[in-house]
Amino acid sequence: MPSQSKIYLDHAATTPLDGGVFNLMAPYFSGVFGNPSSQHFCGREAANAVTSARDKMAVALGISPAELYFTGGGTEADNLGIKGIAQANAGRGRHIVVSAIEHPAVIESALDARAYGVEVTFVNPDENGVITPSAVADAMRADTSLVAVMSANNETGVIQPIEEIYNIVKGRGAYLWCDCVQSAGMLPMSRFPADGFALSAHKFYGPKGAGAACIKKGVRFLRQMSGGHQERGLRGGTINTPAIVGMAEALSLSLKRAEEDSVRIAALRDLFESEVVNQIDGVTVNGGGAERLPSHSNLSFEGCEGQNIVFLLDLNGVATSTGAACSSGATTPSHVLTAMGLGEARVKSAVRFTFGRNNTAEEVERAVGILKKVISAIRG
Amino acid sequence: MPSQSKIYLDHAATTPLDGGVFNLMAPYFSGVFGNPSSQHFCGREAANAVTSARDKMAVALGISPAELYFTGGGTEADNLGIKGIAQANAGRGRHIVVSAIEHPAVIESALDARAYGVEVTFVNPDENGVITPSAVADAMRADTSLVAVMSANNETGVIQPIEEIYNIVKGRGAYLWCDCVQSAGMLPMSRFPADGFALSAHKFYGPKGAGAACIKKGVRFLRQMSGGHQERGLRGGTINTPAIVGMAEALSLSLKRAEEDSVRIAALRDLFESEVVNQIDGVTVNGGGAERLPSHSNLSFEGCEGQNIVFLLDLNGVATSTGAACSSGATTPSHVLTAMGLGEARVKSAVRFTFGRNNTAEEVERAVGILKKVISAIRG
Repeated sequence: MPSQSKIYLDHAATTPLDGGVFNLMAPYFSGVFGNPSSQHFCGREAANAVTSARDKMAVALGISPAELYFTGGGTEADNLGIKGIAQANAGRGRHIVVSAIEHPAVIESALDARAYGVEVTFVNPDENGVITPSAVADAMRADTSLVAVMSANNETGVIQPIEEIYNIVKGRGAYLWCDCVQSAGMLPMSRFPADGFALSAHKFYGPKGAGAACIKKGVRFLRQMSGGHQERGLRGGTINTPAIVGMAEALSLSLKRAEEDSVRIAALRDLFESEVVNQIDGVTVNGGGAERLPSHSNLSFEGCEGQNIVFLLDLNGVATSTGAACSSGATTPSHVLTAMGLGEARVKSAVRFTFGRNNTAEEVERAVGILKKVISAIRG
Repeated sequence: MPSQSKIYLDHAATTPLDGGVFNLMAPYFSGVFGNPSSQHFCGREAANAVTSARDKMAVALGISPAELYFTGGGTEADNLGIKGIAQANAGRGRHIVVSAIEHPAVIESALDARAYGVEVTFVNPDENGVITPSAVADAMRADTSLVAVMSANNETGVIQPIEEIYNIVKGRGAYLWCDCVQSAGMLPMSRFPADGFALSAHKFYGPKGAGAACIKKGVRFLRQMSGGHQERGLRGGTINTPAIVGMAEALSLSLKRAEEDSVRIAALRDLFESEVVNQIDGVTVNGGGAERLPSHSNLSFEGCEGQNIVFLLDLNGVATSTGAACSSGATTPSHVLTAMGLGEARVKSAVRFTFGRNNTAEEVERAVGILKKVISAIRG
């Protein structure tokens, strides 16, 4: 009997680069290799590719090309948004509000922004993992310059009420920053209701090392990557042509197929969740009471340690995680589930399964079978 | 008659990715695509590649793998070094010294570090473009925590006396940061005499979007990219496997062939310079009185505007620049040549020619012929 192929259920951590996107990027490594800032034929060829990519992304996002700032990834985009806005506006507002379930890129940026003289208040979600507009309103002060709430949580997939939150934040004269890293390419992005938002290409089948901060015209912010004139002087560093070409194509492609992919991936996720709940005792769905991304299933297994489950699943060829890859290896329990008030046992027994484009129903059935054996083995 | 092929003489702006390096990177885009921070087979495969690359680079540099911090490029590496050290040491030293001929990544980082409460003093070079150890000593104060002098200048190629400068800086209890972006892969890098230094892969035939800050053990610095646990908590952001694999191979390869390449490239540069000086009147070599990288020739042409020369050379298929690509499009004259005290006419008439691995003697001869016609046309 041939050995079964492995199953990747960690699409929230990263996705494989789309093959067609790779082919589109390939000529820009050794062929059209010029520095897009150079004033000669070689630079212009590269600059033209970057301009086309910028236009393509702007169309996909329904924003102006001048509102796009290319970065080296989602983390850098969040740094630029959070620290850049906090620093530029510290004079008129010394307070920023951040949801407690943000990615470390946002939480740590907010904490590091204290070097610019701002204070940080964290807002907890409800037990479903939702940051309510009223909780945001309660946390805001007269001197709040910036609020950061993500579009959808990376551990639970719970979608946040960004439009309602934006109305409150705008009404109080502050800026809203939205980390869209996890949702981009799955949820519609056109005319996104925030003053700025972050994208990361490798979460939507684009290349690693590419991201964008999308910042609306008129928003005051300062560069965080000090250097040359690139990105209108607001982000120094040689422009990475192949990565940008790839990111634009990957985003455009993802948004085109989002509706179809979402239905198909949600069906796989729902199949997985219902099978697991039916076949295994003591399973709870974290964030299950809220609207979620089609990709995410965050489950707690009574009497188990999430780390052990992930370890045994890995031994059996199934890739999952206890939380964000960025926090992997850390022994601290998930800050997201903790903030939801789920209790230590439930937090520690959680595993995140995230589905993607290439998963199949056969893989889901097989993963459920393996998971069932793993849980039995742990429970003894 | 077939049209002549174009000639690329702007290797200081960027180099083409080496074909072999690209082949080595290729499997890490869509195949071994895991997040190196993930705790499963897919992540481990990627993490192993990153560990091998880190070890390979550390060996090439004669440092410990733990002294390497991967970044999204040379600019980010300079930001981490300059702002990171300035911020961490602002308590014991509120003063930093920066050479006036640094790349914008260093100059602007130093200026932005003023947000952390430090003062900046700039040191001018001599007329050959050399930052003398005594000028550095004179600029230092009792509260100087950091000095930044580049290894070789990106406009003139002039090599700086880093070892002597390091002895002075160390003797005064400060840190030396060295931007090695332009020299890396050409000059020997083993046991480099500085507390920290910056590299950029695309300057040594590696990929864009990859750099490294090499920071010696014991040097106090703070992260500038706030986020997850990556790079020992000192640089957040998903680790870019293909870029790191490519950077390590490109550096290793460049250093292996450095001696041979240097001799060959210096011969081309010297041929070019002597032909130009012989065949064209009123040419001066900027930085010609100092030791230079084998690649660089920075020439001023009496009675001409550098911008016009670059423009006409481009029209005739020769890629050159007036200065750093990062400053291209700017109408301000070169800050490097200005700091050397060369006088406005000479500064404004300067063009940078930078040679590389793939240039040939035939190209040099042809470029000289084209340049001669261009200068005649401008002088009328």
